[in-house]
Order: sequence, then structure tokens, then C-alpha cells
Amino acid sequence: MHIEREPEGVRAASRAWRRSGECVGFVPTMGALHAGHLALVDRARAEGATRVIVSIFVNPTQFGPHEDLAAYPRDLEGDSDKLRAIGVDLVFFPSVAAIYPDGAETFVTLDRLPEHLCGLSRPGHFRGVATVVTVLFNLVEPDIAVFGEKDFQQLRVIQKLVRDLHLPVRIVGAPTHREADGLARSSRNAYLSASERQSALCLSAALRQAQARVTDGDRDAATLIAEMITLCTDAGGRVDYVAVVDEDSLDAIACIDRPVRAILAVFIGRARLIDNARLVPRGGPETLDTPGTRP
Amino acid sequence: MHIEREPEGVRAASRAWRRSGECVGFVPTMGALHAGHLALVDRARAEGATRVIVSIFVNPTQFGPHEDLAAYPRDLEGDSDKLRAIGVDLVFFPSVAAIYPDGAETFVTLDRLPEHLCGLSRPGHFRGVATVVTVLFNLVEPDIAVFGEKDFQQLRVIQKLVRDLHLPVRIVGAPTHREADGLARSSRNAYLSASERQSALCLSAALRQAQARVTDGDRDAATLIAEMITLCTDAGGRVDYVAVVDEDSLDAIACIDRPVRAILAVFIGRARLIDNARLVPRGGPETLDTPGTRP
Repeated sequence: MHIEREPEGVRAASRAWRRSGECVGFVPTMGALHAGHLALVDRARAEGATRVIVSIFVNPTQFGPHEDLAAYPRDLEGDSDKLRAIGVDLVFFPSVAAIYPDGAETFVTLDRLPEHLCGLSRPGHFRGVATVVTVLFNLVEPDIAVFGEKDFQQLRVIQKLVRDLHLPVRIVGAPTHREADGLARSSRNAYLSASERQSALCLSAALRQAQARVTDGDRDAATLIAEMITLCTDAGGRVDYVAVVDEDSLDAIACIDRPVRAILAVFIGRARLIDNARLVPRGGPETLDTPGTRP
Repeated sequence: MHIEREPEGVRAASRAWRRSGECVGFVPTMGALHAGHLALVDRARAEGATRVIVSIFVNPTQFGPHEDLAAYPRDLEGDSDKLRAIGVDLVFFPSVAAIYPDGAETFVTLDRLPEHLCGLSRPGHFRGVATVVTVLFNLVEPDIAVFGEKDFQQLRVIQKLVRDLHLPVRIVGAPTHREADGLARSSRNAYLSASERQSALCLSAALRQAQARVTDGDRDAATLIAEMITLCTDAGGRVDYVAVVDEDSLDAIACIDRPVRAILAVFIGRARLIDNARLVPRGGPETLDTPGTRP
């Protein structure tokens, strides 16, 4: 497994593979890899990739001035071992200066999707994400790129920018990877103490509770949201937001009359954790008018 | 010569050429083609292009709400004849909906270069330019793209975004193409009446005067600018701006102690015309300290 630091090097490797008929899969990460990241590599292969490139780049432009850029966990050696063990072909590990040349001033921005959820809590975050993903796509030139659904809004932003800018890459969303007790895998889980680790279960518990309510026939988003906030607060979390949204526009939904997304961000100690889940109502829209007529 | 309307069609043609070892040159235009555009095609070939693609797309996002989007001259038939006559391989003539899919909300923006010159007079203009050029590059996937120096700030914006976003294309700037009397070729010259056509000579005349002053040893930008404004106003023009700027940053220059760019925008009737020229001081910076010691 080659570790490449130079932009031109990763492009040359990818082009050579594609010229010889290989399908290049790409998994962009910020490192501190866990089983969720490794599952994205598997997914790239399942989607047809015959070569997989993983980038490790803690992207400064997606962190706010008071966020955890400096503290973000870094472990190139451990990451390399994990990627080598699962047969990744190339790790792209660029410097900040290689990605953002001196005097860089160009950004990729979206007008609407960032005006929701994490975008409101983290001004500029999705501008940084959209920019670095565009740059990485331009360097790696992959056929397929895989992103986790855990960062649901990020996945939507990337799908939208790829469509809008006509980037020649197919985006695949992969299900959130969870620990046995339900906690969504995240590099930021490393910030949690043992007791915080226990509190952090409130995110997935709140989502499961919402799914159960909707399965039971509840349709009112406001009621569900209030319950989720209570559950998280009682567990010692500080809620940033809890929302029930349309899966494409991310606009808030009042009545759950179709599949929607519940999504939340909660501070557990200094760690800001996010999670989300699909809520699928029993029966669909018709049940609103004819309650009880469907199983 | 094929006229392609579909994004996937132009990408397929370009990829087929590149796969068989050809070098693809690209000249993006808004149509209403004149000899200046045709010279860009020649330049693409001189730079090594073995196939040339020309796009014709009047890009709505680079026009302000009170600008000349609707009036902008359109002549697909005449344009096609001209491009066929010089052996262009493919014309890409997409619809607005093909470039900007329904709900498009992604833009490429630059933080600093647009805060100068035309960017101040035309808010959002360079956001539209940067976005459409990025989209066109993603579709055409050229090896080389040629832009005229007449739109000097546009050329700098494109060079910067290509560098910052690591787009795999080489940008070539081609000299401004002029009529025999000095008027810079522009599709907007079609707006001019016979007498306005005469007034419009003030732009190139002002630039020539500035060059002559600098050759004579004048260094003070403010004096030159005042003279240029007077010349244009006396000719019946309404000056939008006249500036002397650094050729990379486009920051205003007070003392012309190195090669700089004089650049101006002047309304002649309803036509907003632009032009620019390099000013090269006699001798270079050292002459400031030791006047007369260099030829």
C-alpha cells in the first residue's frame, strides 16, 4: 500500500488505473479510522471498485474558529495499519499547503442546503466540506466515492454539488455503522469519558424511540421532537438541535405522512455528536384519511 | 462539425478523443462570434490541441438583473458557419436547463479577486463566470482552454480557480484582438451606432496614451488615470472605472515601478465596453533610485 503525499502523484496513480480499465473507488476521511470507515471501503468494492483510494486530511476550512481542529484525533500509523490490513491500494495524505495553495481564495458554496441543521450551528462548515470534496475529486478523479449516512446533511450537500457542478463521479451513501449498544461510530467518540460514553447512548435511543412512535402511528413531528429533547437532556446531553426533515430538501416536516429523516446534534461533555435515522410511517399518506384501514 | 446539445454527449466525445491520444482544446464563448473568438481557436491549436471544442452558452448567472441578458446578440447559424469554416471539431450548445439542473444551488466563488474592477460594478458576475466555467470544464474535460485577455479580470479569476480547485486543465491567455483602428473586438460592439462606434475608440486611445506616458517616464498612476478619464469623457463616454492595477492581485498601484495593467470600463450609449493594456515602465524599479542610468 502506497502512501502518497503529492496531488500530482495521486492523480497519476488514479489515471494509470483507469486507463488500464480499472474502476477507482474513493473514500475521503479525516483519519482516526474506525470500523465505520473500513465498511465504506468494503462498500466501494461492492459497488464495483477494483482499486480503492482513501484520503486522510483533517480539513481546516470545515472547522469553525472555536471548534476542535487542533484536538481532532490524528493517528496516521494506526490508520495505515488498518487500511493495509483490508487491502486498500493507495492512501492520499496531503499537507494543508498541497490542498490549499498559498493565497487560495476559491470556495464551493451551496445556497440552501447549508441553511439547515448543522449548517446553522457551524457557519462555513459546509463551504469547507464542499470545497475540499471538490478539490479531492479533481485530484483523485474517482469513478465512485462513498460517504457515510451518519453525516446525513454532508451526504446531501455532496450529492447536490456533484449534480450541480456535473462532476463525473457516482456518489454512494452507506448506512451508519454502530457499536453493539447502538452508538454511531465517530472519530469524536474518542473524546468521551466512560460515563459520557454511557450518556452518548441518548442519541440512538432517542432515534429508536421516535421510530417506535411512528411505527405506532404517531404523525406529529413536534411531539416526537419534544420527547427526543427530553430523553437527551435527561441523559446529561446538551441538545444543539433535534429535527424531523424532508430527506431531500432538509426542510422541517410537521406531519410525518411519508418517510422522513430524524436528525439530531447533542453535546456530550465537549464532544458534539450527531446521528440520524429514517422514520417510516405505517401505511403511507392514505392512512391519514382512513385510519385503521391498513395493517 | 457536430453540434452537441447534451452534456453527456460532449463528455463522451472528448473522452473518446483523449483515449485515442488526442489533445483536446476548448474555447468557451457566449456566441455572436467575431475574429477575436476565431483567433482563440487558432491559439488552442498552436498550443497543441489536435481537436477543438467551442461552447456557445449565454450564461444567465453572470448577468445582473438590470443587464443585457435578453438583448445579448445570438446567432447560432452564423456562428456555426464561422466555426465550420475554420475546422472546429465540435460545438457544444447546451440549454440553460442542461447546465443548471432544476434546483441548482451550487456556486464557485472567489473571496478577493472579484472585489475589484468589474466585480464591484457587476455584483455576482464573477460568481456566475466561475461557476459556469467550472461546469463546462467538468463536462468538456479539456487539456487546454483558451481565454482572451480582453476580459483580463475574468482570465485572472479563471486562472485562480483552476489553481485553487486543482482542475486538470491548462489555461492559456490570448492577446486582445483589435480592429484596424484599435477598437477591441467584442460581441457588445454590435450595440454601437455609427457615431457611438467612433466614440468607442476612446478606450483604446486612452490606453495608448497611458502607455506613451509611461514610456516617457511618468510613474504616477493617479495622473494617468485622470487623463484617461478626461479623454473618455470628452469622447462622449460615461466612465464606469479606470484603474492601474497589479497584474496578479488586481490591487490598485500608485507608482508604476514595474509592469502593471491599465484597465477601464466605459459606457458608450447602452453598451458597456471594457479594455486593458500592459504598461511597462522604462528601465524597471532601479531607475527610481538612479534615474537616467539605464537606456
